Amino acid sequence: MKFNNRNVFIDASVVLGQNVQIGDNTTIYSNVIIGDNTIIADNCVIGEPNNSYYRNQLEYINPKTVIKSNSLIRSYTIIYAGSKFGENLNTGHHVTIRENTTAGKNCSFGSYNDIQGECEIGDYCRLQSYVNIGQRSKIGSFVFIYPYVVLTNDATPPSNLLQGVVIDDYSQITAGCVLLPGTNIGKYCLTSANSTVGGVFEDDSFIAGTPAKKIGKLSKMPFFNEENKRHYPWPKYFERGMPWEGIGFEQWNKLNEND
Amino acid sequence: MKFNNRNVFIDASVVLGQNVQIGDNTTIYSNVIIGDNTIIADNCVIGEPNNSYYRNQLEYINPKTVIKSNSLIRSYTIIYAGSKFGENLNTGHHVTIRENTTAGKNCSFGSYNDIQGECEIGDYCRLQSYVNIGQRSKIGSFVFIYPYVVLTNDATPPSNLLQGVVIDDYSQITAGCVLLPGTNIGKYCLTSANSTVGGVFEDDSFIAGTPAKKIGKLSKMPFFNEENKRHYPWPKYFERGMPWEGIGFEQWNKLNEND
Amino acid sequence: MKFNNRNVFIDASVVLGQNVQIGDNTTIYSNVIIGDNTIIADNCVIGEPNNSYYRNQLEYINPKTVIKSNSLIRSYTIIYAGSKFGENLNTGHHVTIRENTTAGKNCSFGSYNDIQGECEIGDYCRLQSYVNIGQRSKIGSFVFIYPYVVLTNDATPPSNLLQGVVIDDYSQITAGCVLLPGTNIGKYCLTSANSTVGGVFEDDSFIAGTPAKKIGKLSKMPFFNEENKRHYPWPKYFERGMPWEGIGFEQWNKLNEND
Repeated sequence: MKFNNRNVFIDASVVLGQNVQIGDNTTIYSNVIIGDNTIIADNCVIGEPNNSYYRNQLEYINPKTVIKSNSLIRSYTIIYAGSKFGENLNTGHHVTIRENTTAGKNCSFGSYNDIQGECEIGDYCRLQSYVNIGQRSKIGSFVFIYPYVVLTNDATPPSNLLQGVVIDDYSQITAGCVLLPGTNIGKYCLTSANSTVGGVFEDDSFIAGTPAKKIGKLSKMPFFNEENKRHYPWPKYFERGMPWEGIGFEQWNKLNEND
Repeated sequence: MKFNNRNVFIDASVVLGQNVQIGDNTTIYSNVIIGDNTIIADNCVIGEPNNSYYRNQLEYINPKTVIKSNSLIRSYTIIYAGSKFGENLNTGHHVTIRENTTAGKNCSFGSYNDIQGECEIGDYCRLQSYVNIGQRSKIGSFVFIYPYVVLTNDATPPSNLLQGVVIDDYSQITAGCVLLPGTNIGKYCLTSANSTVGGVFEDDSFIAGTPAKKIGKLSKMPFFNEENKRHYPWPKYFERGMPWEGIGFEQWNKLNEND
Repeated sequence: MKFNNRNVFIDASVVLGQNVQIGDNTTIYSNVIIGDNTIIADNCVIGEPNNSYYRNQLEYINPKTVIKSNSLIRSYTIIYAGSKFGENLNTGHHVTIRENTTAGKNCSFGSYNDIQGECEIGDYCRLQSYVNIGQRSKIGSFVFIYPYVVLTNDATPPSNLLQGVVIDDYSQITAGCVLLPGTNIGKYCLTSANSTVGGVFEDDSFIAGTPAKKIGKLSKMPFFNEENKRHYPWPKYFERGMPWEGIGFEQWNKLNEND
């Protein structure tokens, strides 16, 4: 259905792996490398030239863009040149990812995500719809971010001093939160919906309010799951798509320790 | 202007009613049924295949998609296969509606709406721009939802237990509200802007705050309109596009009682 | 890269200035005037017909759209007919600007902006990603608006009485703020992130909370910048892209006084 080679444009310099499919109406600009078994669906733009292209089209050289194997890029996604992603990248629709974004493997970017570039994202992160990641953000691995979250970076707008947000592994940033510039969130934290979060939070914090405070240790809060157990730290109870799927988080950790 | 048959792709299995117009650069995949006098504008994708298509393209069969008569789908809208809408469907631009969404007649979905699918929406609902409806949501009729509202569904993220939000007839969910998983809002309610709403609210509630509480009966609150009358319940004072337009809500209710 | 004349449609009535470039897959409908050295990138729709087109296609005449010189419209932007912009217009991706929007020179509209039309915007305004401007809004010059801000206009939704928001020169509306109908924000104000702002605020207000209050004079608040100076009023310390770039705000003001 999607792969009829109608109105497809792929620059001659693009390197396609084995079994790559490119959807109709999609454009892939120069110096893009796409891994095996990857699907770029219809109406996408991959390797979008950076702003300097418009200033000097003749001398512009598109930076290298890397999309690895087994990725699925859904329709109306724009990925700028100069970004690099690990294997199993997954995007929703109408996504924009700007230049010099680096993301690890098994990351997903939901519909209408606006990743402003110049940021680092670890492995197995899941951003739901409408997530806005400002420049200089650093996001660890296994971080999930929910709709209408924004990671800001300018404490005295407008200014030229950008202070990115840092979110460490396994933390969950729920819907509607604004993360203020320079915020540093430790491992295994949870922010309550619609919070306005600034400052430094240690591991295992439950964070809520405007302005947000640490309410207590997340692992001690009464968030019970279907099994009537305290749900946090969550990796014990959620494994869909995670590398501990089938073996459990504890066992996976032991295997990793032996690495 | 819009209907020049340039770069249009319509699968042979698509059933078009009388006087249907399809805009340039639009794709309609298999098993879509479109009612009379409907316009699908340019750059749309209708009958977008579900995720299982990518896993097994050869055996995949696209579920039936139904768009009824007198609908208007604006540009850059994506409607997944397996969704069904009543007559007079209206979408803005850059809308995404996922699979197994069921909506009644005279519904409108504003620009950048992200309807996650597996949800039920009644008649005459109006979603303004940037509304995010999570799976398992149930929305009654005559419900209006304003920008940056999200209906969430996971109380202990991430987990596998999805609890949808329920909103009953005639309720108004204003800008920036986060509706927490399992929230149940009765008829004729109003949520105040930017509230974080969880729990069960009876009919005629005015709901505000983070976390939100019932402030009082909405019909008793001092919300006055142009005629200096208490505006709620609103159907007495607003009829544009509603089935009681021209006859008034009271008279329309009487006619309905006789049905 | 972007300008190969593939699948481009430009109505015969369109007036193109000198050295205009039109990207692939872009459509420009009738009665659009584009100034010198302007770039309309790929996959855009310019001069989108207004809703009355769908009701009577034969008699419909597209209102005049004016995009002046040195503008850059990025991909997947839709600009409705009947809007007028000054020189150096800049848009992100997936932007929607509705009819009868008037904006001055050097304005930028970030990705996923939804400008509802029937609004006035001054010079040198910068809207970041996901900004939603309701009808009847009036925005001065040098106003910056950050992600997920909505300017609403209906105090008793749904109703037919629209009361736009007014924001005066040099004010900063930070991420996640909801501006309630009829709100009037003076010059040199700052709203704190995630605030719900209603009422009238005099010049130099720092505004915060839900509901928001004036916390104090912004120029007296302890917002210090890199130079360890009070950052507000900000034009003393920020000049990138501003008309006082290189000469300083004070000197620019003096030059303007002599005009």
